[in-house]
Amino acid sequence: MHILVTNDDGVQAPGLLALAQAMRKIAQVTVFAPDRNWSASGHVKTLERPIRVTETMLADGTTAFTSDGAPSDCVALPLLGYTEKVDLVVSGINPNSNIGHDVTYSGTVTAAMEAVIAGVPGIAFSLASQDKPMHVPTDYGPAGQIAEVVARKVLKGGLPEGVVLNVNVPYLSVENMKGTIVTRQGLRLYHDALDRRVDPRGRPYYWIGGEAPSGVDEEGTDVGALLAGYVSVTPLQLDLTHYKAMDVLKSWEWK
Amino acid sequence: MHILVTNDDGVQAPGLLALAQAMRKIAQVTVFAPDRNWSASGHVKTLERPIRVTETMLADGTTAFTSDGAPSDCVALPLLGYTEKVDLVVSGINPNSNIGHDVTYSGTVTAAMEAVIAGVPGIAFSLASQDKPMHVPTDYGPAGQIAEVVARKVLKGGLPEGVVLNVNVPYLSVENMKGTIVTRQGLRLYHDALDRRVDPRGRPYYWIGGEAPSGVDEEGTDVGALLAGYVSVTPLQLDLTHYKAMDVLKSWEWK
Repeated sequence: MHILVTNDDGVQAPGLLALAQAMRKIAQVTVFAPDRNWSASGHVKTLERPIRVTETMLADGTTAFTSDGAPSDCVALPLLGYTEKVDLVVSGINPNSNIGHDVTYSGTVTAAMEAVIAGVPGIAFSLASQDKPMHVPTDYGPAGQIAEVVARKVLKGGLPEGVVLNVNVPYLSVENMKGTIVTRQGLRLYHDALDRRVDPRGRPYYWIGGEAPSGVDEEGTDVGALLAGYVSVTPLQLDLTHYKAMDVLKSWEWK
Repeated sequence: MHILVTNDDGVQAPGLLALAQAMRKIAQVTVFAPDRNWSASGHVKTLERPIRVTETMLADGTTAFTSDGAPSDCVALPLLGYTEKVDLVVSGINPNSNIGHDVTYSGTVTAAMEAVIAGVPGIAFSLASQDKPMHVPTDYGPAGQIAEVVARKVLKGGLPEGVVLNVNVPYLSVENMKGTIVTRQGLRLYHDALDRRVDPRGRPYYWIGGEAPSGVDEEGTDVGALLAGYVSVTPLQLDLTHYKAMDVLKSWEWK
């Protein structure tokens, strides 16, 4: 089995190394990741310019490929034949959770989407470490263990067609996690605010500021699972049709 | 009523002007669009750097705002208070259709998504003009007329909560269009291929090449509607949960 490991934080991110090391326990691994941070970059396909690929090394001395393309490009190139056949694509480990509407922005999730569009199972892994003190290095060990368990299951059982697995891990030791539950996408509450500032030359510029997003703590959702200390496994789909709304719209008079 | 007009092709794109002119027939309009092309850019939120806003002029002499942010940033800033209250966000007119899986990549669609996440109705307009000869200027007139009709309906009837409207217009005169139908997201077939080339200094670079994507011509889908000469109106949602797959995953043994 051959697993492709990528992320949206760039090839030198500690979460990528943790994921690569976890995957090496179960299969042959190729790491192919962006050369810079693409967080909140969405689903990108680079068609207007060519992409360069460079060999680099991870902090454990293993080889990785890096490109100036987006996370989804780093999936597309191997699947289009840059490497040998890929059986599973894993993306992460993102240092922040990807829950609720985050999934529409998340480069981590869209890398897994790109795999599923190409017919290869894709899993996104995120660690809810955003609330830990910034000066303490992030411990990706427990999330790496969870990633190994989930990837083994997917390699064994496969995924239903068209399903992207979005896995969020609470920032706890494995012993302190409550277990793993299958969830639906919850509701994010964004608290963005426009932050207008003036540069040293008197010209305005704008930050998208405000408080960090919160979420509606609801049972059965990714938001609720994480808050309760569970690993959240959400199956996502690529069919975005709002089927219930179709009837409403059909009742409109379209001449 | 106040309509915000944006796109992912950049402020000087002819399709933006056509959409702005169509919207001016029904409401007060603010144009706020990216200063460059963001096609296939996905859903972006620019948090790592500030955004500059500049006043510019469209080809008809009207004023527009432009920013170095992504299409969704160009929606976020006005909705966060850069302009007065917005009642509707329209995005486009994209010169190529956005059907099937395209919607996960499309900057045109994600601009409308950004509006809906913020609680404002959002509509994406795309024109299937990709097959016309390249040397003939694109005629956005008929698509502008359709946009006016759809926007009027949405302003009058509202949209069901959480619905993003994805409208695709065939490249026909209004008289030759068969009508308007409500559709579900169809299946895109991508024919991407890795195109390896060597630069003048002997170093390889890679294009994502191959043939243009096709689609599965199925009744009831956006793909099928366009091919049959109908305007396609697809309600999209932001809940990506694959509900049917939840049961499959729940049957797995998660210890």
